[in-house]
Amino acid sequence: MTDPAETTPVALSTLQTPCLILDETRMNRNIARLTERLATAGVGFRPHLKTPKSIDVARRVMPRPTGPATVSTLREAEQFFDHGVRDITYAVGIAPDKLARVQKLRADGANITIVIDNIDQARAIAALSDPTNPIPVLIEIDCDGHRSGVKPDDAALLCAIADILVPNSHLAGVLTHAGESYSAKSIADLEAAAEQERVAAVLAATILRGAGHACEVVSVGSSPTAHFAKSYDGVTEVRAGVFVFFDLFQAGINVCRIDDIALSVLTTVIGHQREKGWIIVDAGWMAMSRDRGTAGQAVDQGYGIACTLDGTPMDDLIMVGANQEHGILAIRPGADARLPDLAVGSKLRILPNHACATAAQHGAYHVCRSGEDFTHTTWSRFAGW
Amino acid sequence: MTDPAETTPVALSTLQTPCLILDETRMNRNIARLTERLATAGVGFRPHLKTPKSIDVARRVMPRPTGPATVSTLREAEQFFDHGVRDITYAVGIAPDKLARVQKLRADGANITIVIDNIDQARAIAALSDPTNPIPVLIEIDCDGHRSGVKPDDAALLCAIADILVPNSHLAGVLTHAGESYSAKSIADLEAAAEQERVAAVLAATILRGAGHACEVVSVGSSPTAHFAKSYDGVTEVRAGVFVFFDLFQAGINVCRIDDIALSVLTTVIGHQREKGWIIVDAGWMAMSRDRGTAGQAVDQGYGIACTLDGTPMDDLIMVGANQEHGILAIRPGADARLPDLAVGSKLRILPNHACATAAQHGAYHVCRSGEDFTHTTWSRFAGW
Repeated sequence: MTDPAETTPVALSTLQTPCLILDETRMNRNIARLTERLATAGVGFRPHLKTPKSIDVARRVMPRPTGPATVSTLREAEQFFDHGVRDITYAVGIAPDKLARVQKLRADGANITIVIDNIDQARAIAALSDPTNPIPVLIEIDCDGHRSGVKPDDAALLCAIADILVPNSHLAGVLTHAGESYSAKSIADLEAAAEQERVAAVLAATILRGAGHACEVVSVGSSPTAHFAKSYDGVTEVRAGVFVFFDLFQAGINVCRIDDIALSVLTTVIGHQREKGWIIVDAGWMAMSRDRGTAGQAVDQGYGIACTLDGTPMDDLIMVGANQEHGILAIRPGADARLPDLAVGSKLRILPNHACATAAQHGAYHVCRSGEDFTHTTWSRFAGW
Repeated sequence: MTDPAETTPVALSTLQTPCLILDETRMNRNIARLTERLATAGVGFRPHLKTPKSIDVARRVMPRPTGPATVSTLREAEQFFDHGVRDITYAVGIAPDKLARVQKLRADGANITIVIDNIDQARAIAALSDPTNPIPVLIEIDCDGHRSGVKPDDAALLCAIADILVPNSHLAGVLTHAGESYSAKSIADLEAAAEQERVAAVLAATILRGAGHACEVVSVGSSPTAHFAKSYDGVTEVRAGVFVFFDLFQAGINVCRIDDIALSVLTTVIGHQREKGWIIVDAGWMAMSRDRGTAGQAVDQGYGIACTLDGTPMDDLIMVGANQEHGILAIRPGADARLPDLAVGSKLRILPNHACATAAQHGAYHVCRSGEDFTHTTWSRFAGW
């Protein structure tokens, strides 16, 4: 299928480096994999758009052009709303002085839902919310001690929050995120994290329903648990974001394979320190991000795995160090691979540790297809809050 | 002195968070400190603009509106050139296919100098350079094994590069960067790193002069060595960048004090996990960057030190963890300070580990003065390559 916005093909080898390459074939495969899994399970899908921050990617991952969608900032909500997205959950606990922006979005026609986990937030919403256009609110549940949220069995707090919200707002349900699934060491761990996430959300919803609140939304999600949950009983929707691109961290916990990773940074060899076995490239941490998430995994990928221009990983060649605009490639410590002979000017692609962090360092995606050595279009990204 | 671009004051407490705050009073003090030190020493100053990426900051740190300046990307060169900067050194080894952009800048009137450390780059420059407007080239010297550069005593390679350049280009001199000074454990280490940097550059220049090359530029620099060099004998200019803002990493190696740090991230409390001693804020790694540079120092500052709205550090309250848009504040492990009682909606400022990385996550500086609780102007930043 040809994208109507497709532009004249540009050879990847002619792009100024560093820049961000998106393999649309792999992305589409990743999207199809999770979409089909969730459709088969009969559960709703609300993709998290914090990873792509691009309307072009959003339209390919959302069930419909209007959503549903999850965002991590009000800037994302505003930007996607401007491009037609209407059903949006802002999944970070609301700061009271951001409510005016939420109300503006609702007044403009966005069906935006917000998230809270405490009495102070509930009071701020109750004080401001308009009974004729009540803000839907999800109570965040802490399923695994990862960061925010009410304990799923804390009936007193759940009901106290709900009771404050009731007159002027709309208690839409509960939301949780199994952030600790990122520490999974095995498939069994991933399955257990998914079940823990489900059980926590369903328990909290059951408590609220017992107190007379409809609690129609039971929202769970993280890319690892979305791919390994065995049951969605009681769950109404699943959120996941990084899976559209995947990355070395996700590969390290077996949520994807290396050849599912759709995002890479194109770079150029600018020198060598041959006696040290170093190849110097023009992608440093500014292009890769400072994310070193694989450092704590069984296989430390440094700042990323080097690939040839067509995206094929090179044997054990990783970015072992990064300065702001310099990357140092070398053979992975302990491996006996031979350093390839890459002349100054050679182009490589580097697979990232963390797609969200690496993509955030760039203003656009240069989109290509698997097996093709040119980019057929460019998709812009936005940033900020 | 009032900035002519000064806008209506805006209370810091009313800014949407997270956002970047720049204390102009501290910045000006940092600039004055190094400028006066180098002026007293009688050595030139070529500030590195990779940290601020802002013409407003650049104009305050450069000796003159036209420069001199150092940049780390051609985008920086192009952006600063568009705002009147003329004397620019692009201090990352040139990729051959970036030479066309360099030639365009020179044709437009920029006096841009580039950096190389190998024969391939020299040949590419020699093949393209215009004898009527030769590109000035500095040979990068590796003074401490940190990343790129020719060994300072490698006369054969130095002269081979110079000989290739001579007909069509202009061998302007040598440049080195004491990147290893960032690992200094003491003032003596910093002084030694500075002397090693100076000696390496001067040795390479001496070798080249002995072979008949004028080598008028002997450029050294890093923020740590710029502040601790005891001698600049033989050095013509010093480069430094991060010192304009400073950060916790620089404080950790005693190049500055905590209260010299001019950059911080404004954030809002959005919740608590009281039984764990956590305060949740709306600045995560997207606002702070993933830089954990202080992790390897004597005092690990997590993702940064929390300060009150006026910039006063809070006793041992640091960001111990960060998700994309969530920061977790807690008392520093091992400290016996008491967790402050900060209500939802409270505003804090977080001092960053690494000013270059944190600033890069933001599109603008909200500029304030020490002791004032409002911002009087906004300076935009640019990004990309």
